[in-house]
Amino acid sequence: MNPNLPNIGIDFGGTSIKLAVVKNGELITEIERIDTQAFDGPDALLDEIVREVKQFQEQFPAISAIGIGVPGTVDFEEGRTNNLTNVKGWTSVPLRDLMVEKTGLPTVVENDANCMAYAEWACGAAQPFQNAVCVTLGTGVGGGLILNGALYRGATYAAGEIGQMSIDYDGVEGPYGNTGCLERYIGNRQIAELGAKIYAEHGEEVPGELSPARLAELAGKGDHCAQETWQRVATYLGANLMSIIYLLNPEAIIIGGGVSYAGDLLFEPLQKRLRESLTPECFDALKVVHARYGNTAGIIGSAALATDLFCADC
Amino acid sequence: MNPNLPNIGIDFGGTSIKLAVVKNGELITEIERIDTQAFDGPDALLDEIVREVKQFQEQFPAISAIGIGVPGTVDFEEGRTNNLTNVKGWTSVPLRDLMVEKTGLPTVVENDANCMAYAEWACGAAQPFQNAVCVTLGTGVGGGLILNGALYRGATYAAGEIGQMSIDYDGVEGPYGNTGCLERYIGNRQIAELGAKIYAEHGEEVPGELSPARLAELAGKGDHCAQETWQRVATYLGANLMSIIYLLNPEAIIIGGGVSYAGDLLFEPLQKRLRESLTPECFDALKVVHARYGNTAGIIGSAALATDLFCADC
Repeated sequence: MNPNLPNIGIDFGGTSIKLAVVKNGELITEIERIDTQAFDGPDALLDEIVREVKQFQEQFPAISAIGIGVPGTVDFEEGRTNNLTNVKGWTSVPLRDLMVEKTGLPTVVENDANCMAYAEWACGAAQPFQNAVCVTLGTGVGGGLILNGALYRGATYAAGEIGQMSIDYDGVEGPYGNTGCLERYIGNRQIAELGAKIYAEHGEEVPGELSPARLAELAGKGDHCAQETWQRVATYLGANLMSIIYLLNPEAIIIGGGVSYAGDLLFEPLQKRLRESLTPECFDALKVVHARYGNTAGIIGSAALATDLFCADC
Repeated sequence: MNPNLPNIGIDFGGTSIKLAVVKNGELITEIERIDTQAFDGPDALLDEIVREVKQFQEQFPAISAIGIGVPGTVDFEEGRTNNLTNVKGWTSVPLRDLMVEKTGLPTVVENDANCMAYAEWACGAAQPFQNAVCVTLGTGVGGGLILNGALYRGATYAAGEIGQMSIDYDGVEGPYGNTGCLERYIGNRQIAELGAKIYAEHGEEVPGELSPARLAELAGKGDHCAQETWQRVATYLGANLMSIIYLLNPEAIIIGGGVSYAGDLLFEPLQKRLRESLTPECFDALKVVHARYGNTAGIIGSAALATDLFCADC
């Protein structure tokens, strides 16, 4: 591939659609934003996306491909969305073909968590690894797998749903009847609720409205309830990652998303748990690292995917 | 590959080493057995293995490769055992090179659970699938992964350790400090203990010594405690498989080993749990099937691996 070519990355979210031009793993334009909910159905929204794409093309005539990450699973071969989380009217839309038709540019459509994993692998923290598990911790818990030096998609392109995995056969029920669903333990809201519960357990007053960011701030100042909250998050996440590591024996776990900004509050107890629960063989071969990209991972990953797919001989 | 060539498969177990000649996924000789514990250290044991190999060669001069499955992880590139479970003196033995030196035949050394998975994929129940998860239920719980149409080994060739995965972040501890270790819930001995506990819970007398086979027999006759035991086993195994399916989105789960002979007593509640806890997208694409091979899987898989590796152009 030739990563020096500018290409367009599009992070299609339920709230906003973010677009930018990416070159060599970096944004080379400002991020343009479209309010997803302001447009009625795919047609109007697509016209708006195409308008932005054409402005980028005028600025950078060398643009030769588009990558789009969407919040849901896709039929990767067909370039068709199955269903988009929190966006109505997008069931079975042939997004790739519509984009190709309207822009003339080859387009790839991929699940957003896979795009984030791809960003880390193509240009970020997973770059040196043949086998890496990328986890995104935020409102939900997402994931993407790099196996044998390629993005692994699975039978129906639905692999990497780390947030839906179980950490307790008799635990909290997830959205699909999946008992012990990880996301229901360490999603943003659940971490806040866990924090409140721990303050209550210790008979201490909750210091205002809790969020992962606030709990990280409090823990950093030495608040022991907030620290215990992060320890507990590490216990939940550690049980899940341990399982993944026994199954896939990866070289690296890449952790990104808002919650990961808790830094060592999360990473230290997590490392400790992994060291205490893995064979030396698996643990010694393993690196647990921070993702390189934050909010831009979806844009950068989708663009990198487009570059690798369509510009191999550019 | 040319599966019609006869090659030697060796299933290296802690109790006995089983050897046979395999052609086209079938044994074409009786199984020869060596008592693993009757020989002191690798040298004497290897001489005995080589003696058997030479007898096979006299019988089938077309034999051109050897596959060996061992009970432990191996450095696959180097053909070296890391450590063999229940066999002393086998730490870091260059088994492949020793065999090549002593027999003149190209040899491959692989983990035994991976050989079983390979048997199913090369000639058995996993044959039609690009992505399949093979689970072996017996004294322990083993596994092997076929991903993107190839055996997946991981960073240090230790992938597929399904038995060490966690089904409860706060559960029973496994051999490596791995809390909630699946094997500690559904290994042979644990199923027997679970059965005894369920009879006790119902205030019923335990009908003699329990084992998975006995519990299957009792359940088949309508014994409700035995039936409940299998339901519980399905709950544990189901939580684990659900996690694996969300992660890997495979086309098939192949279940083998002694416990799998419980048949529908296990498979029916397992299917039900998976249907109730997976997205339709994952469940509809999934087949849960019985392994084709029983005790011969290790021999057949190791021979098939040797054939595929060394006889591509034979």
